[in-house]
Amino acid sequence: MRIARFSIDGNVAFGAVEGEAIDIIKGIPFADFELSGTRIPLDKVRLLPPVLPNKVVAIGRNYAEHAAELGNEVPAAPWAFFKPSTSVVGPGDPIVYPTFSREVHHEAELAVVIGRLCREVPRERVKDVILGYTCANDVTARDTQKAEKQWARAKGFDSSCPLGPWIETGLDLAAASDLAITATVNGELRQAGRTSQMINSIEDLIVNITEAMTLLPGDVILTGTPAGVGPLHVGDEVAVTIEGIGTLTNKVIKRD
Amino acid sequence: MRIARFSIDGNVAFGAVEGEAIDIIKGIPFADFELSGTRIPLDKVRLLPPVLPNKVVAIGRNYAEHAAELGNEVPAAPWAFFKPSTSVVGPGDPIVYPTFSREVHHEAELAVVIGRLCREVPRERVKDVILGYTCANDVTARDTQKAEKQWARAKGFDSSCPLGPWIETGLDLAAASDLAITATVNGELRQAGRTSQMINSIEDLIVNITEAMTLLPGDVILTGTPAGVGPLHVGDEVAVTIEGIGTLTNKVIKRD
Repeated sequence: MRIARFSIDGNVAFGAVEGEAIDIIKGIPFADFELSGTRIPLDKVRLLPPVLPNKVVAIGRNYAEHAAELGNEVPAAPWAFFKPSTSVVGPGDPIVYPTFSREVHHEAELAVVIGRLCREVPRERVKDVILGYTCANDVTARDTQKAEKQWARAKGFDSSCPLGPWIETGLDLAAASDLAITATVNGELRQAGRTSQMINSIEDLIVNITEAMTLLPGDVILTGTPAGVGPLHVGDEVAVTIEGIGTLTNKVIKRD
Repeated sequence: MRIARFSIDGNVAFGAVEGEAIDIIKGIPFADFELSGTRIPLDKVRLLPPVLPNKVVAIGRNYAEHAAELGNEVPAAPWAFFKPSTSVVGPGDPIVYPTFSREVHHEAELAVVIGRLCREVPRERVKDVILGYTCANDVTARDTQKAEKQWARAKGFDSSCPLGPWIETGLDLAAASDLAITATVNGELRQAGRTSQMINSIEDLIVNITEAMTLLPGDVILTGTPAGVGPLHVGDEVAVTIEGIGTLTNKVIKRD
């Protein structure tokens, strides 16, 4: 099932996307829910970020070729950092070029959406805490990232975390661990990889993160980006596509 | 005014602490509010974290002597990182020693509580976005911090962000910028400094952070720790005291 969050006439709801329509969900997708049977044409709604995460936990250098392209070593343990809820935008929302950077990069990533409150998740229970998967763009001010050794500003600025277009709940862990992932800019292929190239697997990451902290329903794990990161400029349209999930498209605009 | 968040008989409210009693606030402290006149003895309530921040933005190495004691350079620009909402605990709550660390340190810090949604705050408006100040302990797994170059686990584990005991709203920026700050462990003085020793002032930090991201009412800025950080052990009682605000006390316990 493809679970989207959307607005129509000022109301916000979750729905299941089926073809060109969306069936409104009664309740929330983090508990038992039913489809209402009320179907709205997809082109009548505005898709929103499919979740409003309390926190986004992201991982640096989780694809060896990407670490190499920036001249970096592969870390011995996952490097986890946070992107704040204020950085999250949805499909079609603008990425607003930050005023303090002159080198903003796209980073296409598989995002894991957590379905239930969890802590110290054993490896064999990881599958039970995942609601589904969506596409993410870990937009990064590369110059700021180099200048400031902690990345709150470089990777946490407003609109630096596009998520969407929906949460695909039909992939099991094995399937999610071997998906094609690409980024295009203005239709040109820039990043191409497979989630099977991750150094730390989805299970590794969730075990590692929940060893330290509680994850809440709707929290999101970004799993790292494959090789091919590069600059975005005002006016560019960047699209992250993940096999079996969909495409997340955002346009880069100048701040008013 | 000292604004506390508290629970009594399972109900949660904000209140104004006056001597040994707390006067229940009608509404929330982030908008116009009134005191109800209903006063409860302070020893009948359980104080909670005075805010539930959407995000905590913290600053590394903002006191020169503290950078030096860890053998670190003073950074050219502030190093901002996040502590998640799941790391926040209140006065009297336990700090649960994380299983993955053998070297957990206290870091006494002045915390700034944001009062209104804001972005790109000009220096002269900083005073207008601050609701008040409280005490914080930026509890840090020092060994993990060294091993993992991004600090989500080292400084973001559950209970690593004690805040409290209340928000003091009666300090202006000049007063907040020259307060004595100490940490004691089991009554022994470990950290002692003044907020005037900050490399980046409160204004500097809020200008710098809001250049990148929107702050929401209740968000918290941790302003760095003075020299004297050191280990905490299971059974220790750590107290952060800031002149004009109060004392935040937490006991370190073993995870069940």
